[in-house]
Amino acid sequence: MKKIIKNGRVVTSSDTFEGDICIEGERIIGIGNGFDEDHAEIIDAKGLYVFPGGIDPHTHLEMPFGGTVSKDDFETGTIAAAFGGTTTVIDFCLTEKGEPLQKAINEWHDKSSGKAFIDYGFHLMIGEINSTVLNELPSVISEEGISSFKVFMAYKNVFQADDATLFQTLKEAEKLGALVMVHAENGDVIEYLTEKALKEGKTDPIYHALTRPPELEGEATGRAAILTEMANSQLYVVHVTCQEAVTKIAEARRRGVDIWGETCPQYLVLDQSYLEKENFEGAKYVWSPPLREKKNLDYLWKALQNGELQTIGSDQCSFDFKGQKDLGLGNFTKIPNGGPIIEDRFSILYSEGVAKGRISLGQFVDLVSTRAAKLFGLYPKKGSIVVGGDADLVLFDPKIKRTISASTHHMNVDYNPFEGMEVTGEPVSVLSKGEFVIRDKKLVGKKGHGTYIKRAKYKESLLTATASLHL
Amino acid sequence: MKKIIKNGRVVTSSDTFEGDICIEGERIIGIGNGFDEDHAEIIDAKGLYVFPGGIDPHTHLEMPFGGTVSKDDFETGTIAAAFGGTTTVIDFCLTEKGEPLQKAINEWHDKSSGKAFIDYGFHLMIGEINSTVLNELPSVISEEGISSFKVFMAYKNVFQADDATLFQTLKEAEKLGALVMVHAENGDVIEYLTEKALKEGKTDPIYHALTRPPELEGEATGRAAILTEMANSQLYVVHVTCQEAVTKIAEARRRGVDIWGETCPQYLVLDQSYLEKENFEGAKYVWSPPLREKKNLDYLWKALQNGELQTIGSDQCSFDFKGQKDLGLGNFTKIPNGGPIIEDRFSILYSEGVAKGRISLGQFVDLVSTRAAKLFGLYPKKGSIVVGGDADLVLFDPKIKRTISASTHHMNVDYNPFEGMEVTGEPVSVLSKGEFVIRDKKLVGKKGHGTYIKRAKYKESLLTATASLHL
Amino acid sequence: MKKIIKNGRVVTSSDTFEGDICIEGERIIGIGNGFDEDHAEIIDAKGLYVFPGGIDPHTHLEMPFGGTVSKDDFETGTIAAAFGGTTTVIDFCLTEKGEPLQKAINEWHDKSSGKAFIDYGFHLMIGEINSTVLNELPSVISEEGISSFKVFMAYKNVFQADDATLFQTLKEAEKLGALVMVHAENGDVIEYLTEKALKEGKTDPIYHALTRPPELEGEATGRAAILTEMANSQLYVVHVTCQEAVTKIAEARRRGVDIWGETCPQYLVLDQSYLEKENFEGAKYVWSPPLREKKNLDYLWKALQNGELQTIGSDQCSFDFKGQKDLGLGNFTKIPNGGPIIEDRFSILYSEGVAKGRISLGQFVDLVSTRAAKLFGLYPKKGSIVVGGDADLVLFDPKIKRTISASTHHMNVDYNPFEGMEVTGEPVSVLSKGEFVIRDKKLVGKKGHGTYIKRAKYKESLLTATASLHL
Amino acid sequence: MKKIIKNGRVVTSSDTFEGDICIEGERIIGIGNGFDEDHAEIIDAKGLYVFPGGIDPHTHLEMPFGGTVSKDDFETGTIAAAFGGTTTVIDFCLTEKGEPLQKAINEWHDKSSGKAFIDYGFHLMIGEINSTVLNELPSVISEEGISSFKVFMAYKNVFQADDATLFQTLKEAEKLGALVMVHAENGDVIEYLTEKALKEGKTDPIYHALTRPPELEGEATGRAAILTEMANSQLYVVHVTCQEAVTKIAEARRRGVDIWGETCPQYLVLDQSYLEKENFEGAKYVWSPPLREKKNLDYLWKALQNGELQTIGSDQCSFDFKGQKDLGLGNFTKIPNGGPIIEDRFSILYSEGVAKGRISLGQFVDLVSTRAAKLFGLYPKKGSIVVGGDADLVLFDPKIKRTISASTHHMNVDYNPFEGMEVTGEPVSVLSKGEFVIRDKKLVGKKGHGTYIKRAKYKESLLTATASLHL
Repeated sequence: MKKIIKNGRVVTSSDTFEGDICIEGERIIGIGNGFDEDHAEIIDAKGLYVFPGGIDPHTHLEMPFGGTVSKDDFETGTIAAAFGGTTTVIDFCLTEKGEPLQKAINEWHDKSSGKAFIDYGFHLMIGEINSTVLNELPSVISEEGISSFKVFMAYKNVFQADDATLFQTLKEAEKLGALVMVHAENGDVIEYLTEKALKEGKTDPIYHALTRPPELEGEATGRAAILTEMANSQLYVVHVTCQEAVTKIAEARRRGVDIWGETCPQYLVLDQSYLEKENFEGAKYVWSPPLREKKNLDYLWKALQNGELQTIGSDQCSFDFKGQKDLGLGNFTKIPNGGPIIEDRFSILYSEGVAKGRISLGQFVDLVSTRAAKLFGLYPKKGSIVVGGDADLVLFDPKIKRTISASTHHMNVDYNPFEGMEVTGEPVSVLSKGEFVIRDKKLVGKKGHGTYIKRAKYKESLLTATASLHL
Repeated sequence: MKKIIKNGRVVTSSDTFEGDICIEGERIIGIGNGFDEDHAEIIDAKGLYVFPGGIDPHTHLEMPFGGTVSKDDFETGTIAAAFGGTTTVIDFCLTEKGEPLQKAINEWHDKSSGKAFIDYGFHLMIGEINSTVLNELPSVISEEGISSFKVFMAYKNVFQADDATLFQTLKEAEKLGALVMVHAENGDVIEYLTEKALKEGKTDPIYHALTRPPELEGEATGRAAILTEMANSQLYVVHVTCQEAVTKIAEARRRGVDIWGETCPQYLVLDQSYLEKENFEGAKYVWSPPLREKKNLDYLWKALQNGELQTIGSDQCSFDFKGQKDLGLGNFTKIPNGGPIIEDRFSILYSEGVAKGRISLGQFVDLVSTRAAKLFGLYPKKGSIVVGGDADLVLFDPKIKRTISASTHHMNVDYNPFEGMEVTGEPVSVLSKGEFVIRDKKLVGKKGHGTYIKRAKYKESLLTATASLHL
Repeated sequence: MKKIIKNGRVVTSSDTFEGDICIEGERIIGIGNGFDEDHAEIIDAKGLYVFPGGIDPHTHLEMPFGGTVSKDDFETGTIAAAFGGTTTVIDFCLTEKGEPLQKAINEWHDKSSGKAFIDYGFHLMIGEINSTVLNELPSVISEEGISSFKVFMAYKNVFQADDATLFQTLKEAEKLGALVMVHAENGDVIEYLTEKALKEGKTDPIYHALTRPPELEGEATGRAAILTEMANSQLYVVHVTCQEAVTKIAEARRRGVDIWGETCPQYLVLDQSYLEKENFEGAKYVWSPPLREKKNLDYLWKALQNGELQTIGSDQCSFDFKGQKDLGLGNFTKIPNGGPIIEDRFSILYSEGVAKGRISLGQFVDLVSTRAAKLFGLYPKKGSIVVGGDADLVLFDPKIKRTISASTHHMNVDYNPFEGMEVTGEPVSVLSKGEFVIRDKKLVGKKGHGTYIKRAKYKESLLTATASLHL
Repeated sequence: MKKIIKNGRVVTSSDTFEGDICIEGERIIGIGNGFDEDHAEIIDAKGLYVFPGGIDPHTHLEMPFGGTVSKDDFETGTIAAAFGGTTTVIDFCLTEKGEPLQKAINEWHDKSSGKAFIDYGFHLMIGEINSTVLNELPSVISEEGISSFKVFMAYKNVFQADDATLFQTLKEAEKLGALVMVHAENGDVIEYLTEKALKEGKTDPIYHALTRPPELEGEATGRAAILTEMANSQLYVVHVTCQEAVTKIAEARRRGVDIWGETCPQYLVLDQSYLEKENFEGAKYVWSPPLREKKNLDYLWKALQNGELQTIGSDQCSFDFKGQKDLGLGNFTKIPNGGPIIEDRFSILYSEGVAKGRISLGQFVDLVSTRAAKLFGLYPKKGSIVVGGDADLVLFDPKIKRTISASTHHMNVDYNPFEGMEVTGEPVSVLSKGEFVIRDKKLVGKKGHGTYIKRAKYKESLLTATASLHL
C-alpha cells in the first residue's frame, strides 16, 4: 500500500515548498499535490517539516577502546539515532596491524547484522600500508562497498599511522576512488605533553584538554592537507574543533584542494570549561580532540555558514559515567574518549542553527544529510527527497520545545552531555525505506529492518563529473 | 488541460533524478511517476534534462546609450532569451538626476508592457540621494516590487555617483530591504586615462580596454565592499571580470560581508585580444568593464567553482556593428558599450561549464537560475522546480552540437560576438508559466504572455531567515 | 675648535657601542677612542646615549586652518623640537588651486627664514594637476629641493583632490623622483556622515571620531596603494592610525609596492575615549584621522615592531584650547584639527618603545630619525652618526623620569595632550650642525641657526640603487 | 703598531660613508678622518668598500657523511672562507644518540684546534632529549658557549628527530637562552618516495630532487613554526629553498613568532635542471633540500628584499666529484649531500644582489654578516664596524670581474658548482682580529690564528632587550 505524506513543508538542501510525498514500497514515487488517495495510507504532516533522514557519517558502535567497549551497539545506537531523526549511520571498522582487513570487516558485520533499525555502512581504518593491505583494498571497495578509509595522526602506539602511511593511503584512495578520512592531531607531541602532565601530578580531566592544545590540531590538519594536495587525492577531516584547523581547511580549499571538514554538535555547544566540572564529572566531556575555549564556538558556526565546514557527525562513542568513564579517576589518560551524541545531533543543529538564525533550512539539510550522502557514495539513494530515492524521511515539528536528559533519551548510557539543554524542534515520526521506525515519538520499527549498504566510489554516485569543491 | 513532461532527467541546484513533471495552469503540481495521463498533454523528454528556466538578472533592453538605443527591445530580446533557455529577465531602469524615480519606472513599463514573451522585472538605478528620492524609495519597493538598486561608480558625468551616494543607498537599502547593485570601476581615473589616450591619438577599440585596467575594477570593488560592511548592508557586484575584483569579493565574504558577485559569458570565454580585431571589428567586443587578459578566464571559472562568484548575467545591450558600433570609428569612447548575449548565456555556461567538467549540473542551475531568484525576490515562484512554483522549464538536449552565428540567432542585431563557436547542448523546448514559448526549437509563444513581476524584498521570499552567505 | 663627546654610548639604527665623537665645524670627523684632546672642547656623555638628532617629517608650523593659524611658528616650534631631541623638521607648504606653486613656497620661505633654531625643509601640497602645475614641478625639485608632494583624499571642498589628481601626481613623482605623501581618508563619505551628525544635533568632540571611522581610512589607504602600484610610483602614508590602514600598507608591501607608513605618538598612546572628556576638553584631542579605539594601539606597536610602519611624525599643529579649540563649541567641525606634539615625539617613542621593551634601540633610531632621512633625501647629511655627516646629535639620559606638562613644555600653546604622563629618558643636550642648541636642558641655540635644506630626489641621496623596500 | 685603513668607503648594515678606520691590536679603535699616522701602518683602500668580515653561520667542515668525510677541513675550509671575505664560521657539531654531548663537542675541538685561519664557533645537533641530555645542556651554553641547537626533521633513521624531540628542544632553548635551528623537510614521506623511486629503477641524480618535493619542505617548516609558537621559543630555519617554505616563515613572523630564515647562494643562482646534467655531473648539485624549479629563485630574492629571509649560509660540505660524489652512481641515495660554497658565498651575494640592483649595500652587509652575528651571540665583537669590535674587515673592489672556477678556487675539492660564472666584485684584502689573512689576494694569514669563540646566549649580546623581530 502506498503512503502519502500530506500537507507538510518539504525541505531539501536547495528548496522548500509545500507538497505531498507519495511512497511505494521503499521508494519515493511522487512529490506534488492531488495524488490518488484511494488504497493509500494518509499521513498528515500539517505544520511539520519533511526533511530527508539524517545521515550520521561518524559513529563508533560497540567499539573496543582502552579495555572497555562503547555501550551503544547497533541495536540501541540505531534506535536512538532514529528517535533523533537519523536514518543512516556510517560506522568505523577498526583494523589491527598485521591482521587482514577482511577479518575486521567480518567482525563488524557480525556485530551489526540483524540488529539495526536503520541502514548503515562502514568506513575502514588503515593503520599500515604493506603489500597485503594493498592487495586487499580493491575488493574492500568493489565487494564490500567501503569507499572511505580512516587514518589516525594521533593515539601514538595505538591507532597512529606515520606520515608515509597517510601519504600512501591518499595515493591509493585516489587510484581506487575512495575518500580518506583523517583524525588530525599531532600524536607525538600530545604523547610528550601527556606524559609530562602525569609526571607533574596533573591527573584531572581538564588535563586531557590542556595536553592536546588546538595548535596541534591545526598543525596536523595543515600537514594532511599538504599531503593530500601532493597526492592529488581527497580528504575528509573528522571532528574539527577549532579556528586553527578550520583555517587550514579553508586555505586548502581556496588552493583547490579537494578537502572537506566535519564538526560535531558537542564542539558547537560545549566548551573546555565543562572538563573542570566537580566530582570527576569533567570526564563526561572527554573527547579527542577535546572541547575548546569558548571563542571557537562562534568560529565553527561561522565556518558552517561560509561553507568552510560541510558536515556534522556525532562521533558517537558512548560510555557510562559509572563503570567506564571512572576508569580514569586519578589518571585522565584512562578515561574512555567519547560520548553519547547520536540521538541529539540532528535536533541540536536545528535548534542552535536554524531556530537561532545561524543557518538556513537548506544549509541544515545539507549539513545533517545531503552532503554526507554525496561524499560517501549514498546519493541519490539517501540524502535528499527525490523521486526514486529511498523514503528515509523525518517529520519534524519546529515548534516543540524539549529538554534533553539522560532520563528520557534512548541511548544505553547513564548520562547525557547536553543534560538540561532546551532545544526547539523535534522529530515526530521517522521513516526508513518507506516504513515507520518512529511514529508519533514512539518506536515502531523492527530490529533488523536496517541493513548494510554497499556504497559507491567517491563521486561515482553523482550523476555528472564535477570539477568543483561543491559536489 | 494538464501537461505531463515524461521521462526527463530533472535537475535542481541540489538534486538530479528521473521523474515526470505534472503541470496545471501556470504551476507545477507534481513531480514523480505514474501521474494519471488521461486528459493530459504528454510531452516526452526522454534523453533530455529538465532545468528550471534561466533567470537573466542583467539586461538592458531598448536602452538609450551614447545617443543611440540598444537594438533588442522587450519583444526581440525576450524571444531571443526564450530560445536560449531563459524565462525571466530583470532589466535596468535608468533614472535621471532631478527627475522623479517614478517617471523612469513608468517609461520602462511603457516600453515593456504587452511586448514580452517571458516574465520580467526591473532594477532601479540610483544616481543621487536627496529628500525626493528618499521619499520615493519605500513605494518603489512596496508598490512597484523593485527591490534592487543600481549604483554606478564609473561613467563620470553620466551615470557615476560619488561614494557618499553609494553609502547612503546602501544604508537605505538595508533599512528598506533592497539589494544594492554596483558597477565597480574607478570612473575618475578612467576619465583621466581616456582623455590622455585620445590626446595621444590612441583611438582604436583596444584603448577602451587599456584605459580601464583591472586594477581600477579591483579598487572600486574593494571600496564598495568596505562601504557595504560599514553600512551593514548588502551588495551585488555586476559583471565581475578579473582576479583583482574576485579577490576583493572573496575577502569580504570571509569577513562576513553580505556581498555577491556576477560574471557574464563574455568574460568567461573571450579575452582582451578580441579588441584588436582588424577592420574596426574590435568594436564588437567593447564592454565596460572590458574583456581582460586571458589568465583571468581561468580565474573566473575557479571563482565559480569555489562559490566566490554566484550568478551569471548577460549584460545584454545589443548594438548593430553597422550604424551603431561604428559611431566610434576614430574615437573609441563613442563606441556604444555592450553586446548581444541574452540568447547564448545559458548554453555557453552549460557547454563550457558542465560539458567541459568545470562545474556540476547543480552548480550550473544555481548559477543561471536559482541563485538569482533567491537574491532578487523571485523564489520560489521562479528559479527551481518545486511544487507550487511557476512551470518555467527548459527541456535541454545535452548531446546536440550547435554553432553560434548571427545568421541563425534570434536577436535583432547584425553580429554575434561568439560567431563560429561550437557549443554542446541546446534548449529544445521552453515553457513559461505552463505554456510553450519555444517548442521543438520553434517560437510558439505569444507576445504579451510575459508580464511584469513585482519582486519580494531582499531575503523576504525565502522561507526562513538566514544568517548566512548561502541564501 | 673641535668638540669631543666622550664616554657616551653611541647608537645608530644598526649599531650600539661605546666611543667618542669628534666634531669639527658642522661635521662629525671621527668616532672612536683616543682623539687628541688638545684644543678641543670636551663634552662628557658618561651614562648617556648619543643618538642622531631626531627628524620630524610631519609638521604644520604657523599654518592657517579653519580661520585661525597654528600657534607654534618656526621659532617656538623649532625651539620646542630641539628641547625634545629633534634637529630637523619638514613642514608642509600648502598651496591653493589656481595659484602658482612658487607663490606658496615663497610664503613658506618668508615665514620661516631667519627664525628657526634647527634645520628644516618643505613638502609641497598638490591640490590639482594642470599644465601650469606640470610646468612648475621640475623646478620645485631641482631649484627648491622639494622632493615630496602631499595629496589629501579628505577635507572635501578644502584640500581634497580627486583620484585622477592623485594618480597624476603619482605618475609625475615617478618621472621626476619625488615621494608622494597622502592623507588617506574617504572625504566624500566623511562629509556625508559629518553633515548627518550635525543635523541630528550631534555636535560634541566625540562625533569628530564617530564621523570618520577607521574603515574609511583603511579604504582610502588601499585605494592609494592600488593607484601607486598602477603608476609604478612611490607612496608615503602619513599619520596611520588603525589596523584597517596598516593592513593595506602591509599587503601592498608584500606585493612589492613601494609604500611606506608613518604613525604619530598620539595614536600610540591615546585613544578615542579622550574625545569624551568633559568640559569640552575632548577638543584638545581632535586630530584627523581621529584617535581610535584602544585595541588599535597594540596593533600599531606591532606594526612598528614588524616593520609594517617605518616612521614617526608629530603632525605638529598646535592650537590653544582657549581661543582656538573652543571655536568648535557646539559644532565639532569648527574645532581646529591638530595638537602640540613636536616636543614629546622623541621622548614618548623612547619611553613607551625602548624603555617598555617594545622596540630595540636600533629600531627607535630608525623610526625617529634615520628612515625619514633616507626617504626624504636628507641622508647621509642627516639621520645617522657617520663621518662626514652633520653633527646633529642628542645626548640622552635614559634614567631620568620626567612628567610631561604644559606648565613646563616649550611649545607656545596652553595645554599638552600628554599632561601628567611620566616618561623615562630625556634629551639633556642637543647639537645642530656642531653647535649646542640645548645644553644641560637649557636653550643656548640661536634664532636663525637653522636653515632651509634643499633635499635630494627620492633615493638619490642613497649611495647605491636599491631594488628593495628597505632603503 | 696601529693600522689605518684610509680612503675606503665604509659600509655597515645601516650606513655608508667615507672614513678611515684605525686599528690597534685586535680591535677597531677609531673611525674618521685625520688620525695620527705616525707609527701607523697605512693601508690605502681608495676605491674599495670596507665591509665587516662575513659570517658564515652554516658549515660542515671535515664532517662524516654516508661513509665518507667532507673534504674541506678547518684548515682548507677557513683559508677558502677568508679568500672569499668570510672571517667567522659556525660549524655543526654532530652528536650521536646514546653518547654524551660533550664527547661530540670534544671531537669537534680536536679536529679544529690549531688549524683555523679565522675564528669559529659550533652549533650543536640535538637528536634526542632524555635526562642525560637535559643535564648536559646548561653547561653546553655556559661552559662551551654554544647557544644554538640543531634539530633534523629529515634523514630518517640517521639524524631525524621526532616532533616531540623538536618540541622539547624548543622548550629547553627558551629556558636556557639558545636558538633552535631546524632542517625542515618531512623525512617520513621522503623516505617512502625515495624507496619507491629506487624500486622503480629511478636512480639518477635528478630523482634526489623529485623525491623531496618543495611541498614537504613547506610542510615541515610550517610544523616547526607552530611548535615554536606553542613553546614560546625561537627558531632559525636553515637552507630555505622555495616559496612553500618562505610563505610559512613569513606568515609566522606576521603572527609574531620569533622565527628566522636562512637561504644559500646555490638556491639563489642554480636550479633543479642542474641535476639532469649528463655523465653523472648532476651529482655535483645534490643538496638537501634539493635545488628547486627556476621560479623559486625570484621568490627567494624577493624574500631577501622584503626581509622574509634574513641570513645567507653556505651549507659548506664539500665532496670530490671523483671518489666521493660517484659513490652514488646507480643509486642517487648514495651521493654525499653537499658542495663547496664557503668561498663564493660573499661574492655571489654581492654580485647577484648588489651589483644587479636586487638589494642595497646595507642589506648585503646585514645578510652576509651582521644579522648572523646578532642572532648567534657574536655581536658586537663580530658583525659590524664599530669602535671596540674586532677588526674583522674586508677590503672589497666592486669593479673587478672574476670567473669562478675549480682551477682557481682555494677549496680542497675537484669541482666548483658555479664553474664559469662571472661575478662582479672581489675581496682584495681580509683582516681577522687586526691581522691580514689575505693581502692583495694572497694568503698571508697563519694557521691557528683563528680560535674558538664562546658565544653569548640568544639576544644576550645585544645591548637592550627587544620585543621585536628585528634584533
